[in-house]
Amino acid sequence: GFAQIDHDRTARRGFAEVVYCEGKTPEQSALIMARLAARGESNVLGTRATREVFELLKKEVPDAEYDDVARAVVVRRGEQASLGSVLVVAAGTSDLRVAEEAALTASLMGSHVERLYDVGVAGLHRLLRQLDRLRTARVLVVVAGMEGALLSVVAGLVDKPVIGVPTSVGYGAQLQGLTPMLGMLTSCVPGSSVVNIDNGFGAGYLANMINRLGEA
Amino acid sequence: GFAQIDHDRTARRGFAEVVYCEGKTPEQSALIMARLAARGESNVLGTRATREVFELLKKEVPDAEYDDVARAVVVRRGEQASLGSVLVVAAGTSDLRVAEEAALTASLMGSHVERLYDVGVAGLHRLLRQLDRLRTARVLVVVAGMEGALLSVVAGLVDKPVIGVPTSVGYGAQLQGLTPMLGMLTSCVPGSSVVNIDNGFGAGYLANMINRLGEA
Amino acid sequence: GFAQIDHDRTARRGFAEVVYCEGKTPEQSALIMARLAARGESNVLGTRATREVFELLKKEVPDAEYDDVARAVVVRRGEQASLGSVLVVAAGTSDLRVAEEAALTASLMGSHVERLYDVGVAGLHRLLRQLDRLRTARVLVVVAGMEGALLSVVAGLVDKPVIGVPTSVGYGAQLQGLTPMLGMLTSCVPGSSVVNIDNGFGAGYLANMINRLGEA
Amino acid sequence: GFAQIDHDRTARRGFAEVVYCEGKTPEQSALIMARLAARGESNVLGTRATREVFELLKKEVPDAEYDDVARAVVVRRGEQASLGSVLVVAAGTSDLRVAEEAALTASLMGSHVERLYDVGVAGLHRLLRQLDRLRTARVLVVVAGMEGALLSVVAGLVDKPVIGVPTSVGYGAQLQGLTPMLGMLTSCVPGSSVVNIDNGFGAGYLANMINRLGEA
Amino acid sequence: GFAQIDHDRTARRGFAEVVYCEGKTPEQSALIMARLAARGESNVLGTRATREVFELLKKEVPDAEYDDVARAVVVRRGEQASLGSVLVVAAGTSDLRVAEEAALTASLMGSHVERLYDVGVAGLHRLLRQLDRLRTARVLVVVAGMEGALLSVVAGLVDKPVIGVPTSVGYGAQLQGLTPMLGMLTSCVPGSSVVNIDNGFGAGYLANMINRLGEA
Amino acid sequence: GFAQIDHDRTARRGFAEVVYCEGKTPEQSALIMARLAARGESNVLGTRATREVFELLKKEVPDAEYDDVARAVVVRRGEQASLGSVLVVAAGTSDLRVAEEAALTASLMGSHVERLYDVGVAGLHRLLRQLDRLRTARVLVVVAGMEGALLSVVAGLVDKPVIGVPTSVGYGAQLQGLTPMLGMLTSCVPGSSVVNIDNGFGAGYLANMINRLGEA
Amino acid sequence: GFAQIDHDRTARRGFAEVVYCEGKTPEQSALIMARLAARGESNVLGTRATREVFELLKKEVPDAEYDDVARAVVVRRGEQASLGSVLVVAAGTSDLRVAEEAALTASLMGSHVERLYDVGVAGLHRLLRQLDRLRTARVLVVVAGMEGALLSVVAGLVDKPVIGVPTSVGYGAQLQGLTPMLGMLTSCVPGSSVVNIDNGFGAGYLANMINRLGEA
Amino acid sequence: GFAQIDHDRTARRGFAEVVYCEGKTPEQSALIMARLAARGESNVLGTRATREVFELLKKEVPDAEYDDVARAVVVRRGEQASLGSVLVVAAGTSDLRVAEEAALTASLMGSHVERLYDVGVAGLHRLLRQLDRLRTARVLVVVAGMEGALLSVVAGLVDKPVIGVPTSVGYGAQLQGLTPMLGMLTSCVPGSSVVNIDNGFGAGYLANMINRLGEA
Ligand SMILES: Nc1ncnc2c1ncn2[C@@H]1O[C@H](COP(=O)(O)O)[C@@H](O)[C@H]1O
Ligand SMILES: Nc1ncnc2c1ncn2[C@@H]1O[C@H](COP(=O)(O)O)[C@@H](O)[C@H]1O
Ligand SMILES: Nc1ncnc2c1ncn2[C@@H]1O[C@H](COP(=O)(O)O)[C@@H](O)[C@H]1O
Ligand SMILES: Nc1ncnc2c1ncn2[C@@H]1O[C@H](COP(=O)(O)O)[C@@H](O)[C@H]1O
Ligand SMILES: [Mg+2]
Ligand SMILES: [Mg+2]
Ligand SMILES: [Mg+2]
Ligand SMILES: [Mg+2]
Ligand SMILES: [Mg+2]
Ligand SMILES: [Mg+2]
Ligand SMILES: [Mg+2]
Ligand SMILES: [Mg+2]
Repeated sequence: GFAQIDHDRTARRGFAEVVYCEGKTPEQSALIMARLAARGESNVLGTRATREVFELLKKEVPDAEYDDVARAVVVRRGEQASLGSVLVVAAGTSDLRVAEEAALTASLMGSHVERLYDVGVAGLHRLLRQLDRLRTARVLVVVAGMEGALLSVVAGLVDKPVIGVPTSVGYGAQLQGLTPMLGMLTSCVPGSSVVNIDNGFGAGYLANMINRLGEA
Repeated sequence: GFAQIDHDRTARRGFAEVVYCEGKTPEQSALIMARLAARGESNVLGTRATREVFELLKKEVPDAEYDDVARAVVVRRGEQASLGSVLVVAAGTSDLRVAEEAALTASLMGSHVERLYDVGVAGLHRLLRQLDRLRTARVLVVVAGMEGALLSVVAGLVDKPVIGVPTSVGYGAQLQGLTPMLGMLTSCVPGSSVVNIDNGFGAGYLANMINRLGEA
Repeated sequence: GFAQIDHDRTARRGFAEVVYCEGKTPEQSALIMARLAARGESNVLGTRATREVFELLKKEVPDAEYDDVARAVVVRRGEQASLGSVLVVAAGTSDLRVAEEAALTASLMGSHVERLYDVGVAGLHRLLRQLDRLRTARVLVVVAGMEGALLSVVAGLVDKPVIGVPTSVGYGAQLQGLTPMLGMLTSCVPGSSVVNIDNGFGAGYLANMINRLGEA
Repeated sequence: GFAQIDHDRTARRGFAEVVYCEGKTPEQSALIMARLAARGESNVLGTRATREVFELLKKEVPDAEYDDVARAVVVRRGEQASLGSVLVVAAGTSDLRVAEEAALTASLMGSHVERLYDVGVAGLHRLLRQLDRLRTARVLVVVAGMEGALLSVVAGLVDKPVIGVPTSVGYGAQLQGLTPMLGMLTSCVPGSSVVNIDNGFGAGYLANMINRLGEA
Repeated sequence: GFAQIDHDRTARRGFAEVVYCEGKTPEQSALIMARLAARGESNVLGTRATREVFELLKKEVPDAEYDDVARAVVVRRGEQASLGSVLVVAAGTSDLRVAEEAALTASLMGSHVERLYDVGVAGLHRLLRQLDRLRTARVLVVVAGMEGALLSVVAGLVDKPVIGVPTSVGYGAQLQGLTPMLGMLTSCVPGSSVVNIDNGFGAGYLANMINRLGEA
Repeated sequence: GFAQIDHDRTARRGFAEVVYCEGKTPEQSALIMARLAARGESNVLGTRATREVFELLKKEVPDAEYDDVARAVVVRRGEQASLGSVLVVAAGTSDLRVAEEAALTASLMGSHVERLYDVGVAGLHRLLRQLDRLRTARVLVVVAGMEGALLSVVAGLVDKPVIGVPTSVGYGAQLQGLTPMLGMLTSCVPGSSVVNIDNGFGAGYLANMINRLGEA
Repeated sequence: GFAQIDHDRTARRGFAEVVYCEGKTPEQSALIMARLAARGESNVLGTRATREVFELLKKEVPDAEYDDVARAVVVRRGEQASLGSVLVVAAGTSDLRVAEEAALTASLMGSHVERLYDVGVAGLHRLLRQLDRLRTARVLVVVAGMEGALLSVVAGLVDKPVIGVPTSVGYGAQLQGLTPMLGMLTSCVPGSSVVNIDNGFGAGYLANMINRLGEA
Repeated sequence: GFAQIDHDRTARRGFAEVVYCEGKTPEQSALIMARLAARGESNVLGTRATREVFELLKKEVPDAEYDDVARAVVVRRGEQASLGSVLVVAAGTSDLRVAEEAALTASLMGSHVERLYDVGVAGLHRLLRQLDRLRTARVLVVVAGMEGALLSVVAGLVDKPVIGVPTSVGYGAQLQGLTPMLGMLTSCVPGSSVVNIDNGFGAGYLANMINRLGEA
């Protein structure tokens, strides 16, 4: 009774319901994912999952996998299509968890994903050196904490959609990510938009949705 | 000396610099647009422009046009391509200025634009009645003030990218648009992202960028 | 000396003082509830109670009960009237604790309570399918985290009072519940009002008060 | 095209769409109200209306009325039922505009409305003197600016639902009404709930909805 | 070297430096207090002190005392004068720690202190019953969490200075005490002023300072 | 009907109700003050009054006076007692309006008032030069905008109660007075308390109340 | 009496008091500046001055000058030394008023000032093209609105102190400059610090102070 | 792959990349520092490092040192130049961790550092007594929590650049350091600027950069 699975979501939105494990008991999370896996229609994804969720699920679904950087549980079902190219750009080492959540999500939903990490604006040449990789991607995800200036800089260099993911990395005036979130929203460069703080999942999901358009 | 036009922006980003007229004197705005128009490479757009800016520009550029709902000045140059379909959805009559800024921008940059206005969630059937139009668009822009719930509702019904534009329409706890902005960022539906409050321009620009991908 | 029980509250407000256990020592909470139970006039309710509070109370009041989803201690006294119908609607599995606090409170105070859970706006058809249940309730309580859009959607479908309870479920821009709280307060649909974040108790109490009016 | 009237709202919600005039041109506001009046099904209400809106409407609808304390335009249609009793309590002279908006709305929708004004907590005896009137009302609306303490005080004295309307009256730390809004939401007295700052309309609408239950 | 005791503070301000133990190591706190006690000029007070600080100090200063409600360490030195009367009023059981910090501080500095606890506005008669005690005090300290309405109510009943101490007791919109702090600052009743959230010490210190004036 | 004068306030609180003119029509303000003056029991004070209020009042009460720095209307009734000494200290020229509101209020209520203006901490010697005047006052009011550091500095130099009045003077991060308000509340010097931003009236009222204690 | 000029400020701080004209009457501002000019010790500067202030001053001090971009009044006195080099970098045309306030202040205090305007990160090549000018300056002032990313980018390219001035240019989530202010404070690049929003004066003053060190 | 060391930072900025250890695993932090040490070009600094990071690093780099007040790991390489004089001023004992982070950073980068601790404005004479030390420094760093008034006071006494570091020391309205941060930004004394809350590293880095200018 506690959960009503949104059964026709695959039809309506192109991907089954993704389970957000925070705030659920490990038992609840594992149970919902087991049920989705049993239907076998598409890949199953559980985000913000502890290892405990994974251990519980594994008993029911032996081919479940755990990604401990992205803190995600995955069950691969059906064929793994691989479209176009999503580039995930991250500012610093501390932003990796969020970046990997985005990369895993987009890839699981069918996108070919590339990564460009530790290219914060403090050393701009590291980024400029990679201009080609920036310009050949079809969609970009920029993950940055501190003041989040990387989004504006990247968006100014390409002519493709850029999705900004502010992270809670930083302290004091960084306000747990509110500062880069506000900064990304007021970016002086058009062509970008923003998802919630630390929301690697949302960025990867949207990046794949946009990438898919390029295939049609 | 006061303005350095970003000359290779058309090459780099696919569209010339757009002039944001707020905070500039009318003379400055008109002068920059006249210079851009003289280069004749692509359409010229000035946002948040008063009628005074337009009158000044018209003296130099007789084919300049003024859209007083969107508060924008436009000079059409080169051919007007028309790709795919961007759907601009607006919650209420008070959101029209922002919605029209989005529609004008996307259309000027080459997209075919459709409009679906006054379909706020207070009367959900008005929206549900238009499910077909929602589902045939390639990209959607949702413009909403008050609590901005329309973004979640629309995003839950389609499998295409949805760009949310919170507006400053409302009072009190609406906080000049911060409330729908925060709400849209924490939407329980993936597949959407957010631009700045009242930023119809940014939404239209990004919608066109995404729409263009669908043509390639 | 530390607590002055508000002795004529049952007369004045129709229900004895409810004990809010957070910020009190378990001993203080148990002692106050034991005293209220001893007077035996009406049901006793302790909210935000740990199991420890319950264990202490049970020694004095053997028929005390503990509800560990709602985190509440209850002592049933007098007859359990059952009036009209309060419908508690919850958006997601993570909102259950708050929803159950509301349901328990209203029920304990004399209302017949129904539940409709996991019907967030991401999959609107789950809600629309239940239109009859929504429309036969006399008062509705809508419990939602994230952006809280469910309140507007539900209020737009019924012609009865709807009480919104924002929850702290979410992260980042959700601001521990401030975002749905602000959103619910600026809802574009009239007929609703809002209680404090995670305040299931307050919503259940008010729902019962309103429900009671329908009996008179 | 700019406005889609929600035609079956009277059926669905018991009252026709109310026009919020702020952010619309006077012409738009008058036009929508004229159309609603022409259908003649129920009373028509336009809130936050300037006298200019009224003058425009009067040309089309001669029996339109203007209430300049409440800043509202009204067209009375059908019989004026008068149910139960809603009591509007206001703290100070400066809160009158909002209080009158609430009173007018509830009355127009069919409730008998009483008023108790200028009874702020600075002189508590003014309120205590009226205990009888407080206790005979079926629903209460408490309108207060400054710190909004009046809501808690009133709610503690009655056993009926109390709707709090924080107002933007005050300065500095009053934060344009955020302070009483937050205070009302965290009131230590259960049985109350809150609507948006200065939202007399929403409070009156909800008060009437609750009052109506008492008639059934 | 890490701390410079403000040696002439007793002369300048009438009381030796009070040690705020939070953020210092227990060793640092105990050492500073031991040094102050050794000078023997006036009472020594350490606030926000853990039991560990006390245990360390006791080794050096055997007559040190610990008050575990107020979380304070005290060394009584010189005679304990007792002036006029400070009344500490507290809204609920959860506010006791702060109220006791205020009472201890004022008393240690020479004031006769009375207490009136658990008289929150939810049951106003509890307070009104004590009008005599309220009116015979020379200075009042009102300690309240939630929305802090008690300050306005008390200040409206007396003609003496009232010091408000907002507490962090509450949740959600209570914002860890910001809400009653803002509410107390915008109180509609003159004659009161406010100290920092949970700052029982500051309130007791100031109450004593004012009380002392009444003796001169 | 719109205003209920709090008739026994003089008895209960030692001074008649003071009229806060902001948010009232000039007619309402003048009418209330005329009625208070007619009763002739004590001085009448109207704060935040425009000259228009004064002109209206003067027609009825020819001895009314207007202070246009303090923006206050005054009617002197009964004898003008003069007790002890309140010192109003102001940081800069821009803080004068608020400082004069405080000075006028305290003086009208019976206190002898002294002024020490333009002694901001940027030039500390200006303040230190006046140490004697600081130390002979019985109560001090410190009025300061910008960061409000003056309160801490003054409070550290005296052993009397100091009332801080943050002003809205400044820009940007000054946040219309929130910054000095927060700073004054977290002052590292005990012995001070704070009233609302720009609330010279409240500070003067309280200063007089405290000063009066020194006479008893 | 209303203003105490800080007479030895030139000795103590190296420059006479600068008059901040906002919040003073034009007469007050002009009077203070006339007095400072009469002493003739150093240049006189009045910031945020209207033309009216200038006209009044000119009557007394005929060689006063007005800069209407920087909104400043200047009286040049003594010799105009010219040290090292301060580079003022501005992001957009709308930031010019603040940039010019900084440039004027630093120059008036003795620094040689260079300008680099309209080099926002949207077109990074405009900035990179000027790397030599960036690297030969001794101190840099970066003036930027929107998200303020320019500070991080510039600071990452040089090894000299960089002072960030966030401006209130932008809308919505830009929060009147709070967003770039917070962003600049959390910049991922060390070597920079921040002054108040729109505080060109403070930046110019500090830049000159640092520049002067390079001469010693 | 997870970290790209910014190899030419020593050339470009005068000091190698400093490792911010928070948010990295101890292994990541130690690895990056070991690599930097291996290059042997300049001193290596790791901030916000736990003892665990140090233990790991020590295995690879035996001459690594740990400063547990400043929570920093240091590897000294090359000669330790010692320029001019940076004075670190701290308000209270609780601010030491941040002050020591600043002192260590500036010193490691080549500056001679002096310390002046526990001189908060509550006892101003402690500071005034040290006027000579304040005035002989070339750059000052002021570290203060609570309301941060110390920055204004110090800046008003010297004619050298002063860098303010707000700390998170305090509670309630101190808002984890936001209050002194905002206060320092709106300081009424020019000549100062601000870095992020608790950012001793940034202040020390900038102080050294400015100090270095004085040598040239
Ligand atoms: N309505 C708008 N909202 C936000 N940014 C805009 C708007 N219109 C133009 N812009 C951007 O603002 C920048 C122009 O800034 P400026 O150099 O001051 O004209 C360009 O990068 C535009 O893309
Ligand atoms: N300048 C002021 N700031 C704050 N409160 C004031 C001011 N002037 C008068 N008041 C208070 O406001 C209340 C009057 O409110 P009202 O009934 O609207 O006139 C009284 O309790 C006064 O003590
Ligand atoms: N534009 C400005 N922004 C901030 N502070 C300023 C500005 N102009 C002058 N000041 C400072 O404000 C103080 C003058 O305050 P006042 O005594 O009111 O004139 C002086 O200490 C100046 O250094
Ligand atoms: N305590 C600190 N606070 C702020 N930034 C720091 C701190 N320590 C190092 N940094 C900066 O953080 C960046 C290191 O980021 P990362 O690549 O994640 O190691 C460098 O640019 C450092 O200059
Ligand atoms: Mg790095
Ligand atoms: Mg509509
Ligand atoms: Mg679900
Ligand atoms: Mg009144
Ligand atoms: Mg109680
Ligand atoms: Mg001055
Ligand atoms: Mg530009
Ligand atoms: Mg100390």
